[in-house]
Amino acid sequence: MPPYDIAILTTGDELLSGEITDSNTSTIGGILSTYGYRLRCSLSVPDQEKEIVAALQYLIGHVQFIIVTGGLGSTGDDRTARAASRALGQPLVINEDALDMVHEWFIRHNRQMEPSNERQALLPQWAQPLPNQRGTAPGFRLQHKACELFFLPGVPTEMRAMFKQSVLPVLQQKIPEANPRQQRTFKIFGLSEPKVERMIPYQQLPEGVEIAFALDFPLVLVKLKAAGKDAEFCLDQAEALLLRELGDYLMAREGETPEGNVGKLLASAGLTLSLAESCTGGLLTTMLTSQPGASEFLERAAVTYADSAKRDWLKVPSLLLQQHGAVSENCARAMASGLRQTTGTDLSLAITGIAGPDGGTEDKPVGTVYLSLASASGIHVKRYFFSGNRNQIQRMSATMALEWLRRFALQQIEK
Amino acid sequence: MPPYDIAILTTGDELLSGEITDSNTSTIGGILSTYGYRLRCSLSVPDQEKEIVAALQYLIGHVQFIIVTGGLGSTGDDRTARAASRALGQPLVINEDALDMVHEWFIRHNRQMEPSNERQALLPQWAQPLPNQRGTAPGFRLQHKACELFFLPGVPTEMRAMFKQSVLPVLQQKIPEANPRQQRTFKIFGLSEPKVERMIPYQQLPEGVEIAFALDFPLVLVKLKAAGKDAEFCLDQAEALLLRELGDYLMAREGETPEGNVGKLLASAGLTLSLAESCTGGLLTTMLTSQPGASEFLERAAVTYADSAKRDWLKVPSLLLQQHGAVSENCARAMASGLRQTTGTDLSLAITGIAGPDGGTEDKPVGTVYLSLASASGIHVKRYFFSGNRNQIQRMSATMALEWLRRFALQQIEK
Repeated sequence: MPPYDIAILTTGDELLSGEITDSNTSTIGGILSTYGYRLRCSLSVPDQEKEIVAALQYLIGHVQFIIVTGGLGSTGDDRTARAASRALGQPLVINEDALDMVHEWFIRHNRQMEPSNERQALLPQWAQPLPNQRGTAPGFRLQHKACELFFLPGVPTEMRAMFKQSVLPVLQQKIPEANPRQQRTFKIFGLSEPKVERMIPYQQLPEGVEIAFALDFPLVLVKLKAAGKDAEFCLDQAEALLLRELGDYLMAREGETPEGNVGKLLASAGLTLSLAESCTGGLLTTMLTSQPGASEFLERAAVTYADSAKRDWLKVPSLLLQQHGAVSENCARAMASGLRQTTGTDLSLAITGIAGPDGGTEDKPVGTVYLSLASASGIHVKRYFFSGNRNQIQRMSATMALEWLRRFALQQIEK
Repeated sequence: MPPYDIAILTTGDELLSGEITDSNTSTIGGILSTYGYRLRCSLSVPDQEKEIVAALQYLIGHVQFIIVTGGLGSTGDDRTARAASRALGQPLVINEDALDMVHEWFIRHNRQMEPSNERQALLPQWAQPLPNQRGTAPGFRLQHKACELFFLPGVPTEMRAMFKQSVLPVLQQKIPEANPRQQRTFKIFGLSEPKVERMIPYQQLPEGVEIAFALDFPLVLVKLKAAGKDAEFCLDQAEALLLRELGDYLMAREGETPEGNVGKLLASAGLTLSLAESCTGGLLTTMLTSQPGASEFLERAAVTYADSAKRDWLKVPSLLLQQHGAVSENCARAMASGLRQTTGTDLSLAITGIAGPDGGTEDKPVGTVYLSLASASGIHVKRYFFSGNRNQIQRMSATMALEWLRRFALQQIEK
């Protein structure tokens, strides 16, 4: 058994009935990893005193630190404090400090305290209450033989804040020799996972750097991981090697989105944009406008399903629609150029295609998508055949359009 | 201890390091609930033989059925079969039936089998292999004293299919007195959770029907649950009572979305629609067009950030924009009516407002949103003050617009 073992016990009927997926374990596991610690096991039991007692007794014999989440609320099915009192042989008493915390919360939020909220201050005799800034339920800390226990609410936002405020500092003090693991994520677009893997210069990577892959359709995520004192230095080296091969395909890093980065690029290049979407139904526009500040570069957008809309707003000639159809290279080109003539924006981008599930033909199967970009340097148009369901074809098309915008804006900035 | 106890053991370093959230527990918990069984506990341990052995030994002493997921792959960190062999005292041997299954998979998929795949047939001596249609790793079943163990791969799609095919039938045979629990979900819009709760006629509900609430912003989910032979009948009664009070606010049921239902209503009412969005940035359009068949009723949509776009496409007079601003009752009204004049659709709906985080003023704080609907019966317009962050204000505005369309289409159909 490693010298310092940490376990988590999550409580709640809903965790075991399929109603919700336990995210507290991965949240705590993730924070611990960042700081160089590891969970040794995770246990989930229903809101039953007997089950919580049995789980606590099992864990007390096996690990040194136990983090318990859930069951600290004010209703009848919140039984964790009672279970802790039984498992540790400490009577339940009203904890005056905890009671003050509950009172304060209600005063601060200008609300009436219910008598049931007093139950939240009923803790095992030697419990040390832990403040909860975001909810009424204080947490608590207990020592039992060689074991240190922390009890936190199950609500993920409250749990996370209290873990960082009250648990992590104790672990850092008691387990100084942690080995923090660092990680960097790179979001790659336009290459398949096997292709990305083949392009990675494995032989040149510094020792100790691990590489992992994940898919976040349509992006391939590449994660570089390293631990130890040299982690930062090794990751810098690995990142440089990775970006030498893959930098051209990098759409975003950890915490960033392709649409957020493209929006920033357009704004900093001083480019204005208008959009005409058909098969993507507004998805590209919605992605770009979900970011604050989108109105800085986006002048307007149209979703033109009907031919009349393509005629009125995008000045696509009726004859062209009759001769070539709405899903055609000619139509895509006419949409982008007509839109740019109308709006006078630096860039006008058009998407027309067949997202399915219906509407495909032998010539133009579901997944046929045309992109067109009109700018001062001319009109660029290209046909793609994307695969997947309606949603995937829409996402793939919108992301490809973002990629076009990204490359255009980068060229402008470099000029 | 209840007579039939079921536990799940999930294995994998990534479950405890925060890299992925364990979904197998809630998947199995959900299927078990549907069939009237309950998980008694769930345990997660890393890919270490010693940890898996310890967990198995603990569970064997506590429950009657154990479902283990993960660690059946062909790589070095797949150690579940070895751990099972140690925990149960059965030597590992090549299982000929399992080997046939692995061979068959590669033949069926026309791929070359690697020597490492043979390891997947190395099972505890008395294991009974379980077929895996979706992957190379067979599962297996073992009996140990009074305990029945099932070992399944960790890949969720493989795990789920094998659980249904090979585990559930055994449980149904061995635990005949299951008490299936039925559940119905109602998605309510326009009422807060406490208000919904106050409107529920608790006294009149049939005995045994439980009610639970959940939030799926901006919807309140009301779940009715019942078990036993009369479940269906009791739920019918409870549903009738619930809908008598809340039916007017019901936007969707389980498996449905508000946008999907509104799309179907518009199509069946034979109404055509055009949209003009400003602060929602295309979200309403994207929600409606994410459903197949949206082009049946949606003629076109515009996201008009710039005033010039409101002038060109929606015929909003410049003077009106100057006098009242783009976020005003007059502008919302002009957007909807101008759009309807241009398009000739039965309905034209406009949204203009301030989604934030910037752009608010004392008069028009962030969250100020105007909706306007133009139809043959006139132009309706209303101001809202929504709270929340940018994303929440956008979602609330788009859902309110869907609610307007739903009510209009229902009236048309009832006429």
